[in-house]
Amino acid sequence: MCTIEEYFDNIFQDQEPKTLYEPILYTLKLPGKRLRPQLVHIAAEMFDGNSENAGLVASAYEMLHNFTLIHDDIMDKAEIRRGRPTVHKKWNTNVAILSGDALVVTALLQIHKLSCNPETILSVAKLFAQVSMETCKGQQYDLDFETVETVTIAQYLKMIQMKTATMFAGCLKSGGLVANADTESLQALFDLGIHLGIAFQLADDLLDVYADTEVFGKSIGSDIKDNKKTFVYLKALELSNETQAQRLQSLFSASNNMNEKTKFQEVKAIFDAVNVKQATEEKISYYIDKCFEDIDHIRVDEKKKNPVKSLIQQLKNRSK
Amino acid sequence: MCTIEEYFDNIFQDQEPKTLYEPILYTLKLPGKRLRPQLVHIAAEMFDGNSENAGLVASAYEMLHNFTLIHDDIMDKAEIRRGRPTVHKKWNTNVAILSGDALVVTALLQIHKLSCNPETILSVAKLFAQVSMETCKGQQYDLDFETVETVTIAQYLKMIQMKTATMFAGCLKSGGLVANADTESLQALFDLGIHLGIAFQLADDLLDVYADTEVFGKSIGSDIKDNKKTFVYLKALELSNETQAQRLQSLFSASNNMNEKTKFQEVKAIFDAVNVKQATEEKISYYIDKCFEDIDHIRVDEKKKNPVKSLIQQLKNRSK
Repeated sequence: MCTIEEYFDNIFQDQEPKTLYEPILYTLKLPGKRLRPQLVHIAAEMFDGNSENAGLVASAYEMLHNFTLIHDDIMDKAEIRRGRPTVHKKWNTNVAILSGDALVVTALLQIHKLSCNPETILSVAKLFAQVSMETCKGQQYDLDFETVETVTIAQYLKMIQMKTATMFAGCLKSGGLVANADTESLQALFDLGIHLGIAFQLADDLLDVYADTEVFGKSIGSDIKDNKKTFVYLKALELSNETQAQRLQSLFSASNNMNEKTKFQEVKAIFDAVNVKQATEEKISYYIDKCFEDIDHIRVDEKKKNPVKSLIQQLKNRSK
Repeated sequence: MCTIEEYFDNIFQDQEPKTLYEPILYTLKLPGKRLRPQLVHIAAEMFDGNSENAGLVASAYEMLHNFTLIHDDIMDKAEIRRGRPTVHKKWNTNVAILSGDALVVTALLQIHKLSCNPETILSVAKLFAQVSMETCKGQQYDLDFETVETVTIAQYLKMIQMKTATMFAGCLKSGGLVANADTESLQALFDLGIHLGIAFQLADDLLDVYADTEVFGKSIGSDIKDNKKTFVYLKALELSNETQAQRLQSLFSASNNMNEKTKFQEVKAIFDAVNVKQATEEKISYYIDKCFEDIDHIRVDEKKKNPVKSLIQQLKNRSK
């Protein structure tokens, strides 16, 4: 079986026009966690699925994920991704728009290479389109939240479910689909993806404030710098007294042009005072518990569930 | 059966987030020729296909087409489309990127609503992905041509085949697919789309110079203003003597900052002198003849071919 890097080389190397495919291969080869492909394989292996088929779906979801990164980086004006210049910085916005478009279409074509019965391929393809749609909607809500005054925690959780967790759910369920898993297990895999995806994003929000920069691999405090209304911020607001809340809101207002480091320190001091780290960790634990309940509904031998359980533990304790 | 406008209203009205769907509905409701939906319906009706299914595919291709317009308009910095501000002008680039993404994904989801056997839905979905890929590649070649010194006529024809004609081919073949057309007819429909699409684009190139502005509905000369290496320009170069060729190349160089109107008049004078209008019309006729050969290979009663034949005649004589 090919590694995912070999897949990408096979698909994109020597393809014409080079101007379209070079930025795609550059993006796919940036060092990443390859979490979404892992999820597809873990689900497929639980049901002894064909690894070639799982590999095709895994590559499709990694491409979908990278398509969202390329386009989101334009929208967020992000200059660095995984330690390297973003596509729109290294090339330009036009290149980033069109390479992103070509990448998501290539992902689709991967699904059409599956050697399964037509019903299964259709299910995988339809799910892929539904996941892509939810991801777009989630990104739009994320952009909208930048300009509205108040975001509730419920709205925030709905947004990250759409933007991040649905793709996790799509990966796990698609792995099950190509391995002919039963209906109940497919639903459990989907639910597991939702809960795991939310826990993953909450952990990400927390790492932006509390990570060890050397392990995390990216600079911390970027959400604070960009006034992002993450779970950590929203929960801290909820836990604050009136003075702390007013100060936090003023620190996160667009008109505030304080020095980046001073702002980070003052925000973190309030976060510490209201103990938002612990509150966020409790919320993460709540979703991790849900994951284990979902796993109970997957109808395979308990031994087969070990890989997914250990992945969840890893993500729970993630430091990067 | 729903009209295509009703389809769009049903799909997009009252959908959340509004910030994502308003620009989509705005784009889809701009007055357009609805040529791609027509092609789907004409092919499906030739084979007595179910009109609901044809309508779904027709709406999908119209959405794909509009997705390319929204993203291309960003890349081309176009401010006006069909007499109205483009999405990135009326809103902003971020909105245009994400609405475009959501639009192509919605198109995909339309295909998954088809009531056909799974093999047919898969064929339509795969063809849709292939067409999307070719369209992206064509757009990339088009962008690349802006910065290269020499483009051959063969390269140009390949580019417009990818960027424009493949979508015509996809529409006609998909219409045949949902109507269970035989393999030979499906191939003939695809070939017809390619030849018709090339003829359509060459006519478009010609209209940019020779249209009656009042009928054409958009300002003429924009290709000349943007130094676009269209068929008309490339053919004129081929027909020019050395002095004319040098002058044309210098008029089309990026460093030329001549008044727009004066430039148009001087370019048009050379075009007239080398009689490029007639040469282009001959090329269009060549592709129209090919269309009629393709129609001969469609295996239905001759009477059933009248609608497609009259559409081709219309496009041949198009003035807008």
